[in-house]
Amino acid sequence: MTTEAVDLLLVHGAVVAMDHSENVCFDGALAIRGRDIVAVGTSSELLDRFSAAEIRDCSGCAIIPGLINAHAHVPMSLLRGLVADQQLDVWLFGYMFPVESQFVDPEFSYIGTLLSCAEMLRGGITTFVDMYYFEDQVARAADQAGMRAICGQTVMRLPTPDAASFDEGLERARTFIEQWHGHERIIPTVAPHAPYTCTDAIYREAAALCRRYDVPLNTHLSETAREVQESREQRGVTPIGYAARIGAFDVHCIAAHCTHATEDDILLLHDHRVGAVPCPSSNLKLASGIAPYRRLIEAGVRTGLGTDGPASNDDQDMFVEIHLAALLPKGISGDPTAVPAREAFALATSLGAQAIHLDHLIGSLEPGKRADITIVELGKLHSAPRYTYSPDAIYSHLVYSAYAADVRDVLVDGQFLLRDRMLLTLDEQQILAQAQAIAERINDFLANREQNLLDKILAIGGVHQDEIFEVQVKAQLGERGEEVIQQLLVHPHITITKASERTQYDTYFLFHNSERGRIRIREDHRLDPGARLKPKYTITLMAEGRRGEYPSAILLSRARYTAPADYTLRFYREYFQPDDIVELEKGRKRWRIVYKGEDFAVNLDTLIGHRNPGPYLEIKSRTWSRKDANHKAELIGELLEIGGVDEANLVKQEYVEMDA
Amino acid sequence: MTTEAVDLLLVHGAVVAMDHSENVCFDGALAIRGRDIVAVGTSSELLDRFSAAEIRDCSGCAIIPGLINAHAHVPMSLLRGLVADQQLDVWLFGYMFPVESQFVDPEFSYIGTLLSCAEMLRGGITTFVDMYYFEDQVARAADQAGMRAICGQTVMRLPTPDAASFDEGLERARTFIEQWHGHERIIPTVAPHAPYTCTDAIYREAAALCRRYDVPLNTHLSETAREVQESREQRGVTPIGYAARIGAFDVHCIAAHCTHATEDDILLLHDHRVGAVPCPSSNLKLASGIAPYRRLIEAGVRTGLGTDGPASNDDQDMFVEIHLAALLPKGISGDPTAVPAREAFALATSLGAQAIHLDHLIGSLEPGKRADITIVELGKLHSAPRYTYSPDAIYSHLVYSAYAADVRDVLVDGQFLLRDRMLLTLDEQQILAQAQAIAERINDFLANREQNLLDKILAIGGVHQDEIFEVQVKAQLGERGEEVIQQLLVHPHITITKASERTQYDTYFLFHNSERGRIRIREDHRLDPGARLKPKYTITLMAEGRRGEYPSAILLSRARYTAPADYTLRFYREYFQPDDIVELEKGRKRWRIVYKGEDFAVNLDTLIGHRNPGPYLEIKSRTWSRKDANHKAELIGELLEIGGVDEANLVKQEYVEMDA
Repeated sequence: MTTEAVDLLLVHGAVVAMDHSENVCFDGALAIRGRDIVAVGTSSELLDRFSAAEIRDCSGCAIIPGLINAHAHVPMSLLRGLVADQQLDVWLFGYMFPVESQFVDPEFSYIGTLLSCAEMLRGGITTFVDMYYFEDQVARAADQAGMRAICGQTVMRLPTPDAASFDEGLERARTFIEQWHGHERIIPTVAPHAPYTCTDAIYREAAALCRRYDVPLNTHLSETAREVQESREQRGVTPIGYAARIGAFDVHCIAAHCTHATEDDILLLHDHRVGAVPCPSSNLKLASGIAPYRRLIEAGVRTGLGTDGPASNDDQDMFVEIHLAALLPKGISGDPTAVPAREAFALATSLGAQAIHLDHLIGSLEPGKRADITIVELGKLHSAPRYTYSPDAIYSHLVYSAYAADVRDVLVDGQFLLRDRMLLTLDEQQILAQAQAIAERINDFLANREQNLLDKILAIGGVHQDEIFEVQVKAQLGERGEEVIQQLLVHPHITITKASERTQYDTYFLFHNSERGRIRIREDHRLDPGARLKPKYTITLMAEGRRGEYPSAILLSRARYTAPADYTLRFYREYFQPDDIVELEKGRKRWRIVYKGEDFAVNLDTLIGHRNPGPYLEIKSRTWSRKDANHKAELIGELLEIGGVDEANLVKQEYVEMDA
Repeated sequence: MTTEAVDLLLVHGAVVAMDHSENVCFDGALAIRGRDIVAVGTSSELLDRFSAAEIRDCSGCAIIPGLINAHAHVPMSLLRGLVADQQLDVWLFGYMFPVESQFVDPEFSYIGTLLSCAEMLRGGITTFVDMYYFEDQVARAADQAGMRAICGQTVMRLPTPDAASFDEGLERARTFIEQWHGHERIIPTVAPHAPYTCTDAIYREAAALCRRYDVPLNTHLSETAREVQESREQRGVTPIGYAARIGAFDVHCIAAHCTHATEDDILLLHDHRVGAVPCPSSNLKLASGIAPYRRLIEAGVRTGLGTDGPASNDDQDMFVEIHLAALLPKGISGDPTAVPAREAFALATSLGAQAIHLDHLIGSLEPGKRADITIVELGKLHSAPRYTYSPDAIYSHLVYSAYAADVRDVLVDGQFLLRDRMLLTLDEQQILAQAQAIAERINDFLANREQNLLDKILAIGGVHQDEIFEVQVKAQLGERGEEVIQQLLVHPHITITKASERTQYDTYFLFHNSERGRIRIREDHRLDPGARLKPKYTITLMAEGRRGEYPSAILLSRARYTAPADYTLRFYREYFQPDDIVELEKGRKRWRIVYKGEDFAVNLDTLIGHRNPGPYLEIKSRTWSRKDANHKAELIGELLEIGGVDEANLVKQEYVEMDA
């Protein structure tokens, strides 16, 4: 009998084919020629039929389809462990965006991808779907690693590290697709970030690009309940409904998360053959929720699983994601038969391949498909012993007991990329060193910023600097308050240039180390008729400094940095993590006056709910020189006399320093 | 300067002390003398202060307290992967109990524990709390491994593999405690299984034993919603409330699961200083739910984490449990700040030590505590790069990125048990071989049983065997039904000995391989006045065999095994996994008659909802020899003539074989 020549025979493994009949062959074999699987069968059958350049023994191992990570942001491996357990806005606006805007460049995307590819290969992943910036560098690194990847160049309406506008982002995507289109393993595409960060035009143009080059559109949909709610409010439709309406589903679409897909959404996903890709770990860690895994599968939606970016996972381990996809639906539904191991395993193989529209090439071990194969050692201490009386036992083993560390070999297109746990295409030590070098720079940036409140304010943007030298007096007036003010304001040498009335809610963040300064978040409500109705929110960093005292007044030097307070108080609290918080509510009547040719501000403040409510008189004036300060301090003394203020009532503390 | 002599210095690691101030020292060191930690500090400080027999470099590693697995059934590692994704009753009554009753013996508990200890040490676990049978063997193996363990001899009111009654179980516990009491690392105790499997007397006597020997009481409480509901119905109180009432909390108590602890329960747990030990993976996999981690911690309950038995987890990996304890509360609450990494890590260290009442010895790295220490490599591919700008980064690293496989060294009482990933006290290959040998026997048992429906019925108990040879005729009567019966029953040679009327709901489980036979589950309702009111449920295995045909009758040989059907139809369906299910509802009038000295059964059956409803006449008689069969077939022919039944109406199929 003549035998057929092949390049490689994998023999004596438990072949988990994930083909339509879900064959499991306990003493199974695979024949591989070039990039393709030529035959699958028993070891004795294939050893008879083929002569191979190499015969590789897989005793004690499972031979499974290479795992598919259907949603990732692989360069973010460099941000792994940077910060955790924060609210989404603190995480995103306080850490991710500032760090990304400062550090993400082509090198970052390239090195970050190399690190992720090394990790993913060690964990048996052969294909990933990515969405990030400088995606050409992701493609370059994935190609170098020998992996299969769908690389999506991110586009959104906000400025990104690689595009100042979305036009630029789309142009970048087009160029990228043209450069990489037709590559054997890398599918370049465009990734409109999400409905809440994109415009109709972005989705339309992205879909047009995908149609022209026949590549899948990669986007985020319905990740959080809030996103769904806001979409309903703003667009009258869920994010998934919006994507369908705008034409994103008229091309092959990969929709990450779908955590909050409704029943109608699930029908839409099914009918449009959209790939739905929940990310179990990330959806939990960012508190997005738990996707309707069971419903998606039952409804016949092409469902995959993703790790999401390692800044929110923090690993890129599909064994963990499969494990969670099997466990979570049980725990939530109270039904232990929900998403059995075989189904969970399909999410990262056969069904996952459908989700990313590559099921004609990968996802199962069948003749004619690409030889993307992972070989996993079974029966280790954490997974012994082995049961074989039922084919389900192997799925149970792979889903509930196997670890990424059990992966022995990985092949893509018939080429070994990992062999006996050695990476063949990547230099692990060099990558780790390069990654750590970038991390050190980020680490320094953050270490300095954490110590420096100004840097933390600057990091979230919009800051206006204002260095002030101010001569100031404060006096407690008690019952004489109105009388003092009357005497001042009616005085013939005093001209009122402006008057206002307001309530100010101030929150002070105090720090044990007073050199760090203090932060004031002010909510300012105008009460005078005709004034602006909306309160004004400001955040101010006050680096206190007392420069000198005069008979009745004080010279203050204040380095003040003020910005509109666009975030919530909660955000700032979690972001700055003050050692102490003091709240202060006051009614303030304010007059701008001119006295002897100099401008002064006169405040009549009442502290609400304070044990020394006042009222207090404040007279302030800006100053730019010691001589001018002397002069103004004298004028303030005169004003106090005009008001008839007793020197005994002078107060030298700030409100925030007084006992409440 | 003179230096102090110690046995071991661990230097240059990131020491995560988990002491009250939660110190993290990035270039930290530990000094160990004998079984104790002598000092914790910076490397330079300790290198100056001590001279050590050995100095071990821990660069690139974290030095953490040995992890505590606060709830386990370690011998069940031998049942890992046996069966999954089943309803609890199928899992328990269909698989676990039959296999345990057949296979659990001292050797099983010993080898299973060795396997688990090897796995746990590789995963950085130094202490575990167990509950199983032949617990002296668990203690023996744990001692041999060098681990610290609280070993609870299970007691319940049902017969167990090691005790026919609970008296015997309690006596076994008492003997065990006496034998092992005072051991340096092994704490022997008693484990009343759970309120739903125990009596008041068991809990009272167990508590008395614990008091006498000052050992903790180990039990399961409030694992499932159903358990809580049934406890309320039957005892008017939650399981936790019951345990408090019966005195189980008057001694140190370790309460596994507490998945469904109410607010009142949480107060009870706190006030009685009970250790609450949820098992995240197992609680999900068995669909028990998600414990109120955040509330337990906030309420100040001594909270730990357990892996539970490996038949429901399936690994014994505290890194996975810590990870889940950090992720699940976020995903469920929508609050990403719920149970931050530092808190989750405490569950397996400092707080976990409180939960098992050993916080005076273990759980943190402090002078005076035992040197139970785990050394974890950081900055691997899945956990690189490292950030250090905030001490929280190390917790994030350990909780969200670290794997069991990253554990390099483990010490208990100052002795290395794992060193450079080599087990020093256990022979890994021998244990794996011994475990697999036991698994092979179980595998054969199950493989045979799965093929053999009889064995599956036998496995769940109560079977009565009944081999029948029966001569039978069946005829479709159509409209002539009543007339035929009248003619038969009024005939002078026929005596009616018994009459009844009933509705029978039959469910048949059919299998493609007809040699396996078929299973019928019958619900039999008597309709005649005065008859039993409760329906009768039976399950029957019918191994069909057709032995011969007579002019009008058929000889059937039926091996029939009948048992009361105590389980639900759903149970049987999931347990037997038939290829086909046929339901058949019939009204049956039945007469027992004597004709020419022989007994016959005459049935008039109407198939309800069937396209050939009948009525059908059946005449049957038991027979024991070919000659007797010949004779009875002739008599049946005569009876057909008496009834005036046309031979054309004879039916040779069983009802279940006819088209419905």
